[in-house]
Amino acid sequence: MADYKTGELLKQINIPQDLRDKILEDDLPQLCNELRDFIIDVVSQQGGHFGASLGVVELTVALHYVFNTPDDKLVWDVGHQAYGHKILTGRREQFHTNRLYKGISGFPKPSESEYDTFAVGHSSTSISAALGMAVADNIKKEKRQHVAIIGDGSMTAGLAFEGMNHGGVENTNLLVILNDNCMAIDPNVGALKEYLTDITTSHTYNKVKDEVWHLLGKMSKFGPNAQAIVQKIENGIKSTILKQSNLFESLNFRYFGPVDGHDVNYLTKVLEDLKDIPGPKILHCITEKGKGYQPAEDGDSTQWHAPGLFNKDTGEIIKITPKSPEPPKYQDVFGHTIVELAEKNKKIVGVTPAMPSGCSLNIMMEAMPDRSFDVGIAEQHAVTFSAGMAAQGLIPFCNIYSSFMQRAYDQVIHDVALQKLPVVFCLDRGGLVGADGATHHGAYDLAYLRAIPNMIVSAPMNEEELRNLMYTAQTEEQKGPFSIRYPRGKGVMIDWKKPFKKLKIGTGRRIKIGVDLAILSIGAIGNEAIKAIKELERDGVSVAHYDMRFVKPIDEILLHEVFGKFTKVITLEDGCLMGGMGSAIIEFMADHHYHAEVVRLGIPDEFIEHGTQSELYKECCYDAEAIVKTSKSLINKENKALA
Amino acid sequence: MADYKTGELLKQINIPQDLRDKILEDDLPQLCNELRDFIIDVVSQQGGHFGASLGVVELTVALHYVFNTPDDKLVWDVGHQAYGHKILTGRREQFHTNRLYKGISGFPKPSESEYDTFAVGHSSTSISAALGMAVADNIKKEKRQHVAIIGDGSMTAGLAFEGMNHGGVENTNLLVILNDNCMAIDPNVGALKEYLTDITTSHTYNKVKDEVWHLLGKMSKFGPNAQAIVQKIENGIKSTILKQSNLFESLNFRYFGPVDGHDVNYLTKVLEDLKDIPGPKILHCITEKGKGYQPAEDGDSTQWHAPGLFNKDTGEIIKITPKSPEPPKYQDVFGHTIVELAEKNKKIVGVTPAMPSGCSLNIMMEAMPDRSFDVGIAEQHAVTFSAGMAAQGLIPFCNIYSSFMQRAYDQVIHDVALQKLPVVFCLDRGGLVGADGATHHGAYDLAYLRAIPNMIVSAPMNEEELRNLMYTAQTEEQKGPFSIRYPRGKGVMIDWKKPFKKLKIGTGRRIKIGVDLAILSIGAIGNEAIKAIKELERDGVSVAHYDMRFVKPIDEILLHEVFGKFTKVITLEDGCLMGGMGSAIIEFMADHHYHAEVVRLGIPDEFIEHGTQSELYKECCYDAEAIVKTSKSLINKENKALA
Repeated sequence: MADYKTGELLKQINIPQDLRDKILEDDLPQLCNELRDFIIDVVSQQGGHFGASLGVVELTVALHYVFNTPDDKLVWDVGHQAYGHKILTGRREQFHTNRLYKGISGFPKPSESEYDTFAVGHSSTSISAALGMAVADNIKKEKRQHVAIIGDGSMTAGLAFEGMNHGGVENTNLLVILNDNCMAIDPNVGALKEYLTDITTSHTYNKVKDEVWHLLGKMSKFGPNAQAIVQKIENGIKSTILKQSNLFESLNFRYFGPVDGHDVNYLTKVLEDLKDIPGPKILHCITEKGKGYQPAEDGDSTQWHAPGLFNKDTGEIIKITPKSPEPPKYQDVFGHTIVELAEKNKKIVGVTPAMPSGCSLNIMMEAMPDRSFDVGIAEQHAVTFSAGMAAQGLIPFCNIYSSFMQRAYDQVIHDVALQKLPVVFCLDRGGLVGADGATHHGAYDLAYLRAIPNMIVSAPMNEEELRNLMYTAQTEEQKGPFSIRYPRGKGVMIDWKKPFKKLKIGTGRRIKIGVDLAILSIGAIGNEAIKAIKELERDGVSVAHYDMRFVKPIDEILLHEVFGKFTKVITLEDGCLMGGMGSAIIEFMADHHYHAEVVRLGIPDEFIEHGTQSELYKECCYDAEAIVKTSKSLINKENKALA
Repeated sequence: MADYKTGELLKQINIPQDLRDKILEDDLPQLCNELRDFIIDVVSQQGGHFGASLGVVELTVALHYVFNTPDDKLVWDVGHQAYGHKILTGRREQFHTNRLYKGISGFPKPSESEYDTFAVGHSSTSISAALGMAVADNIKKEKRQHVAIIGDGSMTAGLAFEGMNHGGVENTNLLVILNDNCMAIDPNVGALKEYLTDITTSHTYNKVKDEVWHLLGKMSKFGPNAQAIVQKIENGIKSTILKQSNLFESLNFRYFGPVDGHDVNYLTKVLEDLKDIPGPKILHCITEKGKGYQPAEDGDSTQWHAPGLFNKDTGEIIKITPKSPEPPKYQDVFGHTIVELAEKNKKIVGVTPAMPSGCSLNIMMEAMPDRSFDVGIAEQHAVTFSAGMAAQGLIPFCNIYSSFMQRAYDQVIHDVALQKLPVVFCLDRGGLVGADGATHHGAYDLAYLRAIPNMIVSAPMNEEELRNLMYTAQTEEQKGPFSIRYPRGKGVMIDWKKPFKKLKIGTGRRIKIGVDLAILSIGAIGNEAIKAIKELERDGVSVAHYDMRFVKPIDEILLHEVFGKFTKVITLEDGCLMGGMGSAIIEFMADHHYHAEVVRLGIPDEFIEHGTQSELYKECCYDAEAIVKTSKSLINKENKALA
């Protein structure tokens, strides 16, 4: 293990029981400092999520100090706030392998530790999950505490509200900790945020409540008549303020707070108290993302969400300046291109659920604030809201990460496709995403979108194609939903800003002719095929390569050509094999009685863990090397058969 | 057209403009009576949704009276409250074809009428959709009103909350009408319901507020000192009550109400006023399901949600007593079987999102109230809550209609399958559902579930198999998620309560041997194959029939047998062809180099409208007759080829 700065107190803690046994209350602030330093030290050298975990250092320490983990259940919402938790729960020595191939996961993961009670990568699941655990323990008559720790950004998602609505009427002692740092990844939006700001600013709910009580006390001195009236007022106010005056109390959660989430000693006291208060309750903690690390406190907190490597002493984020120009990220191609298109086509609007910087819609939000919408963590709403706009004649480009689009599947079917509304779905992070791992891979989109009638399913192989697909999707003749999925990370073209070209829907293109076998690829992974084919050609194997471009409608003319000529075909996709593009192609074969030998390359039927994208392509056997191998074995089989 | 009772006023209204032009305000109550009578008259003879539409008669009339439809946009949530709307908007003469094959749809449908602004069959979409329309009109600088009409039951779904959260910060004049009848289909649940009851019972929010104001006014009389204190109290209360005292005002919606939703004249006045009030606002209307029809008012409102045919004079629901015993509904087999299993296996719990009577979990809710949960319209939560319970060692049977499961797709992947938690998903209403039509068909589940790693995907062919699959899913050895999908309606066995038999996961069964071709079916539609095969045998065609039982894992031994023997195969499923079971089978063929001729029967790649299930099977060419035809053509093709 590299030599990371481990303070004297932190060193003693291998499991939370050590924390409870060995650390005095007075030493908790010092421990928090050490934990914070350790996170800064490792993350500055290894990368990873940063701001969120720094913000909950005190909360993490207080929770493990007060609650009897792992018997008591802590459910962290989203996972990237859980670094401190990981370090305190037996993974300090492995922490430098965070998010690396075969290393520990960046998110809580039950298979990694018994302290990780629930796998969480997507947001807003914690309340429902913790409620389920609490109810289960009621049924089993086992006594333990259940705590969900959820950020204010995650609180806007419908799932969190559904959990609160149910939690308010179940007979459990569920504690929800609202970690309010006024941020998701991007500054968060919506009425709930304004509300939280309201109740935390000077005239807080509690202050006013106390003040009114106090004043009513004074009024009583005006004699018995006044007292009677005061009594009535008090009852009236009680039945409104107490029962209904707080959003959370409306949902039958007892509300406590706001409290300073960086005062570890006060937090332990409050948590200790709350343990004994029955029924569902919410503790509102105010924290600061990046707390305790000056550059992050002062800087742009979106940037410090996951800053990459940085010099921890100067706070300088290390940017490796490439020697020669590099291809852009696909997300930036999207961001610039939508602005370019929207300048000409007044019908275009942009929508993102809380990922403006992640998907680069922020470029449009700056250029055209009135026509671009960050709706907060609310994928379902993002889609139905887009459908509403489309119903009134606009062309929304709704950008959602592929794995998050799973949250809006019904809305895509029921609110968009059924009405054939012209919503353009741009699915960023399609395919294997790398370090974020199993929760974030965009593995299923081609399969689940393909099943939807009226839906066009496409994926560009490079930046130019992405631009052309976006262009095509917004043309006058194009009716109905149109999905375009592209991967995380960089493209392949330096000079990518080519003039727009309209594509014919449902047409692929032949990239290369060949005779021994054909590779049919979809999307950017086709570039691995190009590499493989070069190597194969060197070895005397002649491979034809087709970029399908559309999974649906699939290019039947192209496929007739391919299956008319070739008896050996490889399909290649950065997506699940079950029901994906390869299946679409063999469906075509079955329907048209072709009998070629087809090998389908793609994500196998299992959850793939984290690593770099290339490590994972290799693991799943569809990087260039694997394509070469598969091709050769397919050819050799023929040779053997002939021999 | 049959002779339905059309009142004198109603007769004059062919479009809403007639209502506005021809009907005096004083005559509105009479019109409401006529509209109500018309609905009672038709629905009692034709069937359909009943309670919800009767409850909104006054609201419907008032909305079309006040707003300039279709230019102003009304978005009805869920659709089954929109019968009155349909009758007033040009479809009175067609109304008796409601929900019939080729007749008008039971839900709003833009392709049917310009007054139907948005297609709605699933709940809780209206706020997001109307907000999208309002924002679009802002962008286009077109002035019109936008109204979402949503029931209290639908308000619990996360999507509605997401819409409110965004709506509260957008600069629109969106009006949300909360139609509060204290019911979804089943009495609705959750904290929000209690909250709404709170603010509508005697000490209403408004009453108390008014009273407190009033009393504070009196206090002022105690002299200048008292006045100063009163001032302070007033300010204090204002900043809590006014800003934060109401759940909806917390979300930045101005709250009005509660108002009597059956006072049509008052409603028109209120709506007229609200037109001029800028910003997002919510009008809380109290209505009664079944209002104005005594048997429905007095009776069980779950029963009167969609009572079937009834004698409108006596209120007697017409039950056709079958001459001989009939097979049970699949949902009842589920309902009785889960109780039977749960009696023996203490780990079993039951979960439904608002469909206890629809899926028959109500049988368990009565027998074991502590172990069965109706979580309200909240599919996402239902799944993640189940995952939480499973994480603590229980075995939740989570029953969700197939088409509603689309709402919880991410939760199935991310919260259940990724952790391999033993949640049993019972998907009722799998396949074509009949009269509810396009929004409700469970067409995609086999395809979208099959793509998920760790997921077992099964479908029983009859009641006994359903029981055995449920039994198998809860055995000790069974780990991980298990889905069982079955259709709407009746099974095929009179004597269905057979002893449980454990099935081997991933095994199908041979129902019949044959030589000319093999039919591989999944689920209850296999019974159509049985009928077809009988007819084919009469015509001298010998057909083997296999019930696959599992789509995943698929029975490879069985498939090797089939493709070893047969060159002609038909796959049959009551689900979408794109990526469904047929695709799983040809994936197997491709992977194992089989070259049989395969015809896949199932739901084609389009949205199927409403009708009876048999009408729709026929339309989609997979009823017995179509199977016969396909089989013969497959055989003849061979004969021709041989000739």
